[in-house]
Amino acid sequence: SFSEYNTPLKAKVWFSSHSRRREFFEASLMSMGLELEATKSVLDDKLMFVKVHMPWDVLCTYAEVLHIKVPIQPNDLSSRTSPWHFLSCITKHFYPSEKLISKEAEYFTAPFEKAQEEFFYIKDKDLFFTPAMRSRMAYYILSRAPYELRGNIKKFGINKLLDGGVYKAAYPLHDSKDDACPNERFLLYNEWAHPKSFYKMQPLDLIRKYYGEKIGIYFAWLGFYTYMLALAAVVGLGCFIYGYKTQETSTWSKEVCDPEIGGQIVMCPQCDKFCNYWRLNSTCEASKKLCIFDNFGTLVFAVFMSIWVTLFLEFWKRYQARLEYEWDTVEFLEQEEPLRPEYEAKCIYERKNPITGILLIVASIVAVMVYRLAVFFAFSTSLRNQDLKTLEPLKEYVTPQMATTVTASLINFVIIMILNILYERVAIWITNFELPRTKTDYENSLTLKMFLFQFVNYYSSCFYIAFAKGKSVGYPGNPVYLGRYRNEECDPGGCLFELTTQLSIIMGGKAIWNNIQENLILRHCKRGDAESTIPRWEQDYRLQPFSNLGLFYEYLEMVIQFGFVTLFVASFPLAPALALVNNLFEIRVDAWKILTQFRRIVPEKAQDIGAWQPILQGITILAVATNAMIMAFTSDMIPRLVYYWSFSVYPYGGHANHTMQGYINSSLSIFNTSDFTEDSMPQESYNITTCRYRDFRYPPGHPRQYEYNVYYWHVIAAKMAFIIVVEHIVYFTKFILSYVIPDVPYSVKEQIKREKYLTQKILHETNLKL
Amino acid sequence: SFSEYNTPLKAKVWFSSHSRRREFFEASLMSMGLELEATKSVLDDKLMFVKVHMPWDVLCTYAEVLHIKVPIQPNDLSSRTSPWHFLSCITKHFYPSEKLISKEAEYFTAPFEKAQEEFFYIKDKDLFFTPAMRSRMAYYILSRAPYELRGNIKKFGINKLLDGGVYKAAYPLHDSKDDACPNERFLLYNEWAHPKSFYKMQPLDLIRKYYGEKIGIYFAWLGFYTYMLALAAVVGLGCFIYGYKTQETSTWSKEVCDPEIGGQIVMCPQCDKFCNYWRLNSTCEASKKLCIFDNFGTLVFAVFMSIWVTLFLEFWKRYQARLEYEWDTVEFLEQEEPLRPEYEAKCIYERKNPITGILLIVASIVAVMVYRLAVFFAFSTSLRNQDLKTLEPLKEYVTPQMATTVTASLINFVIIMILNILYERVAIWITNFELPRTKTDYENSLTLKMFLFQFVNYYSSCFYIAFAKGKSVGYPGNPVYLGRYRNEECDPGGCLFELTTQLSIIMGGKAIWNNIQENLILRHCKRGDAESTIPRWEQDYRLQPFSNLGLFYEYLEMVIQFGFVTLFVASFPLAPALALVNNLFEIRVDAWKILTQFRRIVPEKAQDIGAWQPILQGITILAVATNAMIMAFTSDMIPRLVYYWSFSVYPYGGHANHTMQGYINSSLSIFNTSDFTEDSMPQESYNITTCRYRDFRYPPGHPRQYEYNVYYWHVIAAKMAFIIVVEHIVYFTKFILSYVIPDVPYSVKEQIKREKYLTQKILHETNLKL
Repeated sequence: SFSEYNTPLKAKVWFSSHSRRREFFEASLMSMGLELEATKSVLDDKLMFVKVHMPWDVLCTYAEVLHIKVPIQPNDLSSRTSPWHFLSCITKHFYPSEKLISKEAEYFTAPFEKAQEEFFYIKDKDLFFTPAMRSRMAYYILSRAPYELRGNIKKFGINKLLDGGVYKAAYPLHDSKDDACPNERFLLYNEWAHPKSFYKMQPLDLIRKYYGEKIGIYFAWLGFYTYMLALAAVVGLGCFIYGYKTQETSTWSKEVCDPEIGGQIVMCPQCDKFCNYWRLNSTCEASKKLCIFDNFGTLVFAVFMSIWVTLFLEFWKRYQARLEYEWDTVEFLEQEEPLRPEYEAKCIYERKNPITGILLIVASIVAVMVYRLAVFFAFSTSLRNQDLKTLEPLKEYVTPQMATTVTASLINFVIIMILNILYERVAIWITNFELPRTKTDYENSLTLKMFLFQFVNYYSSCFYIAFAKGKSVGYPGNPVYLGRYRNEECDPGGCLFELTTQLSIIMGGKAIWNNIQENLILRHCKRGDAESTIPRWEQDYRLQPFSNLGLFYEYLEMVIQFGFVTLFVASFPLAPALALVNNLFEIRVDAWKILTQFRRIVPEKAQDIGAWQPILQGITILAVATNAMIMAFTSDMIPRLVYYWSFSVYPYGGHANHTMQGYINSSLSIFNTSDFTEDSMPQESYNITTCRYRDFRYPPGHPRQYEYNVYYWHVIAAKMAFIIVVEHIVYFTKFILSYVIPDVPYSVKEQIKREKYLTQKILHETNLKL
Repeated sequence: SFSEYNTPLKAKVWFSSHSRRREFFEASLMSMGLELEATKSVLDDKLMFVKVHMPWDVLCTYAEVLHIKVPIQPNDLSSRTSPWHFLSCITKHFYPSEKLISKEAEYFTAPFEKAQEEFFYIKDKDLFFTPAMRSRMAYYILSRAPYELRGNIKKFGINKLLDGGVYKAAYPLHDSKDDACPNERFLLYNEWAHPKSFYKMQPLDLIRKYYGEKIGIYFAWLGFYTYMLALAAVVGLGCFIYGYKTQETSTWSKEVCDPEIGGQIVMCPQCDKFCNYWRLNSTCEASKKLCIFDNFGTLVFAVFMSIWVTLFLEFWKRYQARLEYEWDTVEFLEQEEPLRPEYEAKCIYERKNPITGILLIVASIVAVMVYRLAVFFAFSTSLRNQDLKTLEPLKEYVTPQMATTVTASLINFVIIMILNILYERVAIWITNFELPRTKTDYENSLTLKMFLFQFVNYYSSCFYIAFAKGKSVGYPGNPVYLGRYRNEECDPGGCLFELTTQLSIIMGGKAIWNNIQENLILRHCKRGDAESTIPRWEQDYRLQPFSNLGLFYEYLEMVIQFGFVTLFVASFPLAPALALVNNLFEIRVDAWKILTQFRRIVPEKAQDIGAWQPILQGITILAVATNAMIMAFTSDMIPRLVYYWSFSVYPYGGHANHTMQGYINSSLSIFNTSDFTEDSMPQESYNITTCRYRDFRYPPGHPRQYEYNVYYWHVIAAKMAFIIVVEHIVYFTKFILSYVIPDVPYSVKEQIKREKYLTQKILHETNLKL
């Protein structure tokens, strides 16, 4: 009586030195009650498959040992029907077809106890334990069965045998892909992995049943994230459209473009010697585009996103708590993990690494340097195209400034992708050097390192543009130097526009690159799976093994994307929409991959998304600060608001009412060209006596000439006040929200209580005389 | 075989209508295996005691039902000897005498299973279950035994019988206080509650053994808090001494006192009509005292305390995790709680209250109004004493300004204490109105309300003084009015000094009042406990019952104190020292109270300090913000630093080096007395043309006269920058600390793992052929 589904298989090759261990191992498996059957391979004579089957009695024994929770009574707490029930005729289209994937009955569950078998809700012994449970139990036995006895030392575990090459592989069997009998894999393929259902909710219970909780929770998280992104994307798009519509009405960009105002203002050169004077209205196009992103809508959107991330985490915790209950991992007893073979081999004390910290600093310096070099390179190429002789505005759609920004971002992106590969190796190398004890330790240690390296690599240039570039540049007569190089100024359009460009190129590029990479690898590895004459186990053997770190890379990609969506959203409201499109695609590709390209994954239990949760929490906290600071320091919002509310009227300005008129003139200080130092004087001099620069300083001739004036301090105070107010309000709201929204929903709490009560009553108190 | 210790007793009075229930109840107790013995009272003929005894077999049954964890094997993980071991000859004096209270052997524990009795580590059946465990089991049975059967409805539980007056009391027995046989109570009394051991660590394991985990964790928390306070008190005292020593050297207060500088400056009156001009050097004494609290040391101390609170919470979590493990509450399965009788009686749906929110707002407005009235009252009395005719400085040690502040604080304190009683009733009333389902719900709901009301009541006036008073007062020619009243200005010595006074009076007053109250109540209730002829149960019956909310009030008092110690510490570095003295006293008084004045408390399990933990967390987060804001807005530090680093030198000032000289003059603006409005002109006019006021505004005659000048915006920007920098650094440090310090210590994790492994191995895998 062999059940071919859900039994792990091993393929062996006949090395004589291995046969003794193999025989010992298989003998101990049989002594534990497993039934084995050996079959020759159809395609390869040297290959032998050993099929493993667990009879009912063994299943029961190990279900008790592993405290596997099984149904004890149908759930009698009626889940209230949703108040949106009447919409079901619409919403049902967004769920997997109920005809095919029927909703599972809910049960209260309790850890299985062999002695009290009669109290459990056993309808059909063949279906009582799910495939994932059986695989888990089989894997437990395989990983504990001894294969050698040297004196008192017992060597055990399939993993060491695999490492030693005694067996070639061990894996649970996939369901048949054949559509004749509609099995779980077939259902998943049709209702989940197929691109046609991209807009549908995922059949999570079925995924969990087939792949176990660890894979299930990844897809649950990915689905939830995508769902929440939809909301952010809608608001972000709205904000973008608002900006797009109002770009023509902005007084400020009108003044820049006006030949009578912007055309008359001669700006000081932005670098030593080689740069030239330029007219303000040459940035007309850029300033119009900036208006799309730098307006009041973005401010609102940034605050909205700060709240959104909080809601995201809070609702995810609730959702996770519900899954935890429904998937019976509430009081999940983690198994004593075996040591990693690498650890046992070297077996030294655990070492903590100060290297990571140092490397992180080096990495971020490298990343910023790369960016600055990229800018320098792009700048020098674009300089050649630029006609320095004329002060006329350039008429083309793409101004040289924009060309510089885009080129620099592209070069930067390519280098980031190359550095990424390097950093990955470094992270793995450091983690190996640390020699973590168990697989979980290894994964957690690597998670943090990889995340930090990638974080630094991807985000450094963005942080640099947002918070450092153009911040302390001095004034034309006394520019600030960093070593030999003059501190960069921002693109004349403003730093925010550069940030937007940089972000969209990195984010878009990354998404495109990842998808190309995945498809290339898969196409390359695609093997014949079609011949139905080959038995199931041999078809599966020819699939790729699922790497230990497979899920890790999927999470990493998504978390880095989450960072882009939240950290710099104040400069790029389209980010959520881009991410949404990418993720709708990503879910189906991932699903298709694990369903058809990989061997079935050994099911593992997982309560939550592990080390990623604190990382997400960290990002949400950081996001509030970065967005507030982008609004204050990178964007031009605050100076404009201060001008509108304060400088335009008495006692500072001459206007009778609050207005934006005259803002451009007021935000530019005057510089006397005779005050240029020898080094920074432009090579070609025109008959220009004064030029303008962006800053609030006293004009030449004033007793405190070129010192910061009252406007400067007023604007700085306003910026700081903005940060303080926004941060305190948002953090306070976050705090209140996380207090008001309980982590575990009320109904789940009730059900957990009831389940505990029933377990106590049925299993433990039956013999009491109460 | 009756064991008199650890058996609950009930005293009954003979009402005929009750006898049926009583008989039924006692019959069901006996049918459950309990042994009962009735005894007549020695002193009161109408009283009857029923002693309850649990035989070994019943104990075993219920230990399994309650999943009570008992020793399975001695702990073989050697706890490393501390590196400070060599100091033990000194430190041993701070621990309870080891001769009397011997260190208990450590065991790995597992939930008891009757069927596998032989695997547990049973040395002596009489001592295997601790007194607290036995009481808990007895209470479990008593609260589940039926006393009436009406058709299908079974009525059960001792609590309802107590409420109905069927029994008068049910309590576990105290140990004898007799010192002939050194029992646990005697040991506790001598080594813990006695004032002579005030400097010693508490014998927590013994407390837990005698009173259960809930009382144990309260004293553990209190002890830990006191221990941490000692550190803060030392640094705070150091900071105070530093301030005291340097008060004479401050250039700033020297200038105020200097008859050539401060004596020449005529200040504008601080209220309409009735106030007069005053010379700056009349605040000489106050400004010297202010120097003690408002100096660079305080800034350092405020940052130190922000870190301290984080460490406090982090280390407490670790300590709690260790206790959790040692006291076997790691996976503690909370019992299904019975419904509160009040809830069952009315049995309506749970109602949420919007009332609390509204009442809180009202309460805080009332509190601030009370404070302002108190100031007004104190001000009007002190006005009478003030000699308005002369502009000479007042020579007495207590200036009228100080007298006003102190009087106002005292009046305010008295009203706070009266309002407190009112708010307590309101909180209980609202909670009763809400009708929570269970006792825990009730306690949690009341905890939050009481805390919020007390928080608002105690802290409102402090918040008002720190952040609102004197903040928007306009300038003498155009003061800001709030309704009919002119907005208050701060004491000429500065708001910080007022805050310090207010804090020390509320905090000191509260501590003194609480201790008086506790002693009064106890002295009043003291009853004869001396006669040793009276049996134990009757002696205990004459003690006070321990109220359900007893522990709640103890926590509340301490948490409010924690608030004073942390929230406003930047203005009063002595607060930790005061709290330390109070707590050393408090621990022993509490211990003495529960050991001698109350009946033995029914032991309860508790994993942590419950709803107080998030409240403490909230306070620690708030404390960083309040302290940073006090330093920025209430203290005078930032303007002084800005003067030193910026205004004293080019381009603002004429000094060649950074200096504090001239600060006083620069921080006062000039007002032309002819610009007074009709309403605010002082009644008695002198031959004074200009007076000075604290603000940064343009002098009269300037084109923007009385508008804020560049100094103002510069100082504001510096204040904001200070807040941003301090908050971000401290919060970031907090974040890193809470990440770096794991909540559960490594050694505890190891032990939990080992315990799980052993439980699995010994109890569940004995029959496997692995």
